[in-house]
Amino acid sequence: VTPALPVALDAMGGDNAPDAIVAGARQAVAELDVPVVLVGPPERLDAGGLEVLPASEVIGMAEDPAQGVRRKKDSSLVRAAEAVRDGRACAMVSAGNTGAAMASALLRMGRIKGVQRPAIATPIPVPGTTPTVLLDAGANAECTPEYLVQFAQMGSAFCASRYGVARPRVGLLSIGEEETKGTPLVKEAHARLAAGAGVEFIGNVEGRDLMTDAVDVVVTDGFTGNVALKTLEGALRFFMAAVTSRLPGDALTPLLPVAAELDPDATGGAMLLGVDGVCIISHGSSGPRAIVSAVRVAAEAAAGGLVERLRAAVGN
Amino acid sequence: VTPALPVALDAMGGDNAPDAIVAGARQAVAELDVPVVLVGPPERLDAGGLEVLPASEVIGMAEDPAQGVRRKKDSSLVRAAEAVRDGRACAMVSAGNTGAAMASALLRMGRIKGVQRPAIATPIPVPGTTPTVLLDAGANAECTPEYLVQFAQMGSAFCASRYGVARPRVGLLSIGEEETKGTPLVKEAHARLAAGAGVEFIGNVEGRDLMTDAVDVVVTDGFTGNVALKTLEGALRFFMAAVTSRLPGDALTPLLPVAAELDPDATGGAMLLGVDGVCIISHGSSGPRAIVSAVRVAAEAAAGGLVERLRAAVGN
Repeated sequence: VTPALPVALDAMGGDNAPDAIVAGARQAVAELDVPVVLVGPPERLDAGGLEVLPASEVIGMAEDPAQGVRRKKDSSLVRAAEAVRDGRACAMVSAGNTGAAMASALLRMGRIKGVQRPAIATPIPVPGTTPTVLLDAGANAECTPEYLVQFAQMGSAFCASRYGVARPRVGLLSIGEEETKGTPLVKEAHARLAAGAGVEFIGNVEGRDLMTDAVDVVVTDGFTGNVALKTLEGALRFFMAAVTSRLPGDALTPLLPVAAELDPDATGGAMLLGVDGVCIISHGSSGPRAIVSAVRVAAEAAAGGLVERLRAAVGN
Repeated sequence: VTPALPVALDAMGGDNAPDAIVAGARQAVAELDVPVVLVGPPERLDAGGLEVLPASEVIGMAEDPAQGVRRKKDSSLVRAAEAVRDGRACAMVSAGNTGAAMASALLRMGRIKGVQRPAIATPIPVPGTTPTVLLDAGANAECTPEYLVQFAQMGSAFCASRYGVARPRVGLLSIGEEETKGTPLVKEAHARLAAGAGVEFIGNVEGRDLMTDAVDVVVTDGFTGNVALKTLEGALRFFMAAVTSRLPGDALTPLLPVAAELDPDATGGAMLLGVDGVCIISHGSSGPRAIVSAVRVAAEAAAGGLVERLRAAVGN
């Protein structure tokens, strides 16, 4: 899929910016035949023929997101979001400050009409089948039942669009399968989803279902979602270290395909759903391969009309 | 450590009750030299010389906890809790209905004076070092900042007592290290813990810290704690299956020590902290080995004066 417009890539975002980001951009252009425009200070980018959209400022990884976006109007993040808003790019990708990327996208692109809160949708790899889409993975620490219903609708549309799941099974993250389990937020969201929200609601699911094919989309508030995601990351790191430190290298060969499927660099990062444009937020540690994946997923989402699908999903 | 009083073991609780439970009891008595009294219907127990405290009813695994405890006054769970209350047992152990075990302990033993809500403390194995104690792992889906402060105090006393950690590092589970991150509950609890609560508060921690030695006690509400714990369980199950299905049996030998440390049967189950007696809640799937561990931990907690330590920890 080759979009007409380039993907706007925040060249200054991430622990390894700008070099690893620019390297990823070049690789993406060469491998995917997707146009990419680098956003950042031209004098600091070894662009090698790639188009550069000038932006003189950088919002740091640890900077306050709201302040950063307000004060640094010529930052690479803000300019990348503006490029999407102005129809000069089909999508934005950043491995930078997550909060600032959200704020830039929200303030410059705006929300899709009817969406109360954008949410971060993170694909959790499940080797052997399609990933489980978890949302919200951290955009909204506090949620209302209405937000969760919209997350279900947006997550379902995203899962169908990105992974070709015809009718994604949507589960509500709780601490027991019974609808009487959980917080008032979860109970009320359960009632609304069960009453019919245009999604295939399968009821409550638990943390142990995340890495299985029992569910396609898992809905939760941004606090719980972020904790669950980081808990999984920690477990993954623990097991990888335990196995690689104790087994000889050649014994690990049969595990390589699983490791490849679990590799966060292959997932393309998280998608901010609900803003009026495609916005991918990659892990701060992204290297060139992660950037290639993110550019690919961004281009596919734009070409596949993701925003229109989300608009239809929340339409009521 | 041999307590004078026996451990009261709910012979009817758990997926494998009563046979696996009774087998575990016999093993515990033989291996640990700890007296055990089985609680249940004598005619259904192959007690083989062990003392039996008669109880004619059983609260099922899926039964409503509050109703079960209210209606089944002669149930094995209620009678086990009464045995502790009445000074006939030093501790109770059940692999049965978690909610009903909590309710039985709470209603029959009562709370330690000053404790607002008992919490479930679950040790998360961290191979190579002491486990991370997570609480609340599911007793209270909704919490106040005051509860979390008490969880920190009780968790710290429990960790010191059980694992000999002189000054346990206590972390508050959140979605970023900065004190500005998280829900209002987390922010307020952070402020109170930082202001001084008699524990070694190291600030916010994240899900990825659970399986590391960066922290000894992790405090959170029962909803988040339960989600995190089940997420870890799911990841553990996924990795075990991935590794054992892909590597030949003899290649797994170097991993056995890690697997043994991660084995939930070895941890002794979760401890209900804050009730006026020792109460261990084991996994529903407990087999004989898990019961032996639970009996051992229960006897040690009773002999070590856990309740007195908790009383001192929350004293203010």
